Amino acid sequence: MAENKIPYKIYLEEDEMPKAWYNVRADMKNKPAPLLNPGTHQPMTAEELGGVFCADLVAQELDNDNAYIEIPQEIRDFYKMYRPSPLVRAYCLEEKLQTPAKIYYKFEGNNTSGSHKLNSAIAQAYYAKKQGLKGVTTETGAGQWGTALSMACSYLGLDCKVYMVKVSYEQKPFRREVMRVYGASVTPSPSMETEIGKKINAEHPGTTGSLGCAISEAVEAAVKNPGYRYVLGSVLNQVLLHQSVIGLETKAALDKYGIKPDMIIGCAGGGSNLGGLISPFMGEILRGEADYDIVAVEPASCPSFTRGKFAYDFCDTGMVCPLAKMYTLGSDFIPSANHAGGLRYHGMSPVLSQLYDDGLMRAVSVEQTKVFEAAEQFARVEGILPAPESSHAIRVAIDEALKCKETGEEKTIVFGLTGTGYFDMVAYEKFHDGKMDDYIPTDEELAKYAAKLPKID
Amino acid sequence: MAENKIPYKIYLEEDEMPKAWYNVRADMKNKPAPLLNPGTHQPMTAEELGGVFCADLVAQELDNDNAYIEIPQEIRDFYKMYRPSPLVRAYCLEEKLQTPAKIYYKFEGNNTSGSHKLNSAIAQAYYAKKQGLKGVTTETGAGQWGTALSMACSYLGLDCKVYMVKVSYEQKPFRREVMRVYGASVTPSPSMETEIGKKINAEHPGTTGSLGCAISEAVEAAVKNPGYRYVLGSVLNQVLLHQSVIGLETKAALDKYGIKPDMIIGCAGGGSNLGGLISPFMGEILRGEADYDIVAVEPASCPSFTRGKFAYDFCDTGMVCPLAKMYTLGSDFIPSANHAGGLRYHGMSPVLSQLYDDGLMRAVSVEQTKVFEAAEQFARVEGILPAPESSHAIRVAIDEALKCKETGEEKTIVFGLTGTGYFDMVAYEKFHDGKMDDYIPTDEELAKYAAKLPKID
Repeated sequence: MAENKIPYKIYLEEDEMPKAWYNVRADMKNKPAPLLNPGTHQPMTAEELGGVFCADLVAQELDNDNAYIEIPQEIRDFYKMYRPSPLVRAYCLEEKLQTPAKIYYKFEGNNTSGSHKLNSAIAQAYYAKKQGLKGVTTETGAGQWGTALSMACSYLGLDCKVYMVKVSYEQKPFRREVMRVYGASVTPSPSMETEIGKKINAEHPGTTGSLGCAISEAVEAAVKNPGYRYVLGSVLNQVLLHQSVIGLETKAALDKYGIKPDMIIGCAGGGSNLGGLISPFMGEILRGEADYDIVAVEPASCPSFTRGKFAYDFCDTGMVCPLAKMYTLGSDFIPSANHAGGLRYHGMSPVLSQLYDDGLMRAVSVEQTKVFEAAEQFARVEGILPAPESSHAIRVAIDEALKCKETGEEKTIVFGLTGTGYFDMVAYEKFHDGKMDDYIPTDEELAKYAAKLPKID
Repeated sequence: MAENKIPYKIYLEEDEMPKAWYNVRADMKNKPAPLLNPGTHQPMTAEELGGVFCADLVAQELDNDNAYIEIPQEIRDFYKMYRPSPLVRAYCLEEKLQTPAKIYYKFEGNNTSGSHKLNSAIAQAYYAKKQGLKGVTTETGAGQWGTALSMACSYLGLDCKVYMVKVSYEQKPFRREVMRVYGASVTPSPSMETEIGKKINAEHPGTTGSLGCAISEAVEAAVKNPGYRYVLGSVLNQVLLHQSVIGLETKAALDKYGIKPDMIIGCAGGGSNLGGLISPFMGEILRGEADYDIVAVEPASCPSFTRGKFAYDFCDTGMVCPLAKMYTLGSDFIPSANHAGGLRYHGMSPVLSQLYDDGLMRAVSVEQTKVFEAAEQFARVEGILPAPESSHAIRVAIDEALKCKETGEEKTIVFGLTGTGYFDMVAYEKFHDGKMDDYIPTDEELAKYAAKLPKID
């Protein structure tokens, strides 16, 4: 490992940072299916969406045509505070694995929110501010999105109300505390503040909440409070658009050194990181300019791509949100309590769902003990303590690098390292103490939820 | 804040990274006083020190002559994994404060140990490995040093035994868990594993431990176990030498853009960060090439510079370590239980103590509620959640920038942001809930400890 032509970390210069987001939908032949009104089952209009989301974001959500959307200067300035993120050559991991593969990872954890979520949080907060709103509401599970949004709102002087899944609120007091540093109000969900919260509490006394339920509460709070709109950290088209900054930077960094990847790997919960990371590469595939092996990695305990249905479904438990056509396990599905970390959403980004259905990418599921093994192995040589979510991608990257060791192939593997695991030490402790196990839902269980999918003509 | 000539973050290229550490002692007219044998009160010989520290580190500890000491290639490779650290222009903070001052900070928190401690940990672990040792022992308080050393040892395949101050062990289970990810064994101190631990437990039943006591245990464990040596994360000359990489990078980054700082500010506990950050600038002062206002910031609850004595003292509670001449509050001094975070060591680096005594730098003390106010203000605009220790420097940087606002001076202020506060949310919570108060030791209290300083002829 003496002197290498390619540095350990590739940083772009400020003037090499993206000036526009890339909208992969513009290059898709089969566009993602539109969101439907949950009452009429007709495509949601801009006006209908405008009651929930702020106007510029509605336009972005519905825009299937423009390939590039300019990043406003204010957002670019904010990006400069914590971006560009490094594209790291994993020399130390390669040496440890003794693999001929060349491994790169795009590390999005070097900001206080600890993850890539900030890329969309600042954009959504910016447009809310621009529209003259007072504040925004949202939900958070593991807490990364809530932290990112708090940080963005604090920067812009917007009010921020976060509904945090009750079990996380109680088990992750430090996450809650970080949001308070940024001045957000954090309410455990289901709460008694909203109608839907009261209803869920009445029907399921003692429930520890779910992401779907927290979404319903946040939407209700936005709709009922003048001057507020709802924002969401994943799944939506607009979020993937903002997150394209990850992929654009990755591609620029690779191009700078003439590197062409063979594989691109990302973890997938709602799809925000994966969708952002792969977007410019997928664009090349869609335009017939290049080919890449694109891999989504999801938890075996919440396998929406690999075992879900491609169908219209509710985005939330309370069924107040529009319907989305996506790979889904059913809006009532909640992963087993022994599942650690995020990636627990029942559905998947409609954009990624369409691309997957069209055979343009593949998906694998991994069990969490294997994920934590990879996390620890990575931490010990690369010096970054990865989030459990990100470690799904690490697991598959390591597996692929080990395959290369067997075959002698010198594949170039790029994966997304979405964030750090500082707030996930309880899960690491369970892993170390041998108390972590792998629960995979049975076919019968999944069939039960799938049977409840809404019937859309 | 449109387009600025100086980027938000200045990164050096790999080939601009320091190839040698800078040893400020070589330029000091008044050298730091030698360590003394606690029995004979004679200067410690290399042979005596060799029983505790490994050979190359003893040589570095005693070297007052060589200005530059080459960084071995293996350490430089490891540095490339997480360095260069960014020198950040705090544009957002400047705007928030509406100050004409130009504020820069060197951010050392972008690695899993979460602080600058890794710079010396990898060096000390490397020399131990080179000497063919089995492992190293150390103490840790807040946990940053223990984490850093665990990470370095895991990388090199060395055994790592950490004595963690009992109160931190219990209050910071996640810190302990991170060390376990890196394969270290962590023992709460005082333990029943060492003679000194047993003695302290017997004399002070129910004690929650102290740094001085954990040092004694770690030294005993190193001396009694063949193939082990003791390593320390601060205070020592060798540590300041390794940490000079912070200052050298800072200076190179400033020089790259032709920036000349007026002030350099760092927090000071044992002095590792401050000593490293200021070293090349202090070298210029000592050689008469430039002048800078250099400021050490310490907690009002542990004010070794501002209210301590410059005298020989024990480095540890058990009095097994050599005596060091330093600014000290007395080796029995323990800051009030309401003091949050690190910077709780009773003494101060002999190098910095000498420079301070020679009037080449100044020191201020700050109260912790003011420190947390600054931390929160900084987090909200700069997007980094600072460690309580680092926030001492932030407090003074903000105060100085506000003075510039009054006077209209366009001072260039550089401060060291040593690390992140992810594991300090209990302290942030106390601050938010108004449960944090400021305890400043009385003159009588300090006099009581000072009276117990050893009498050295």
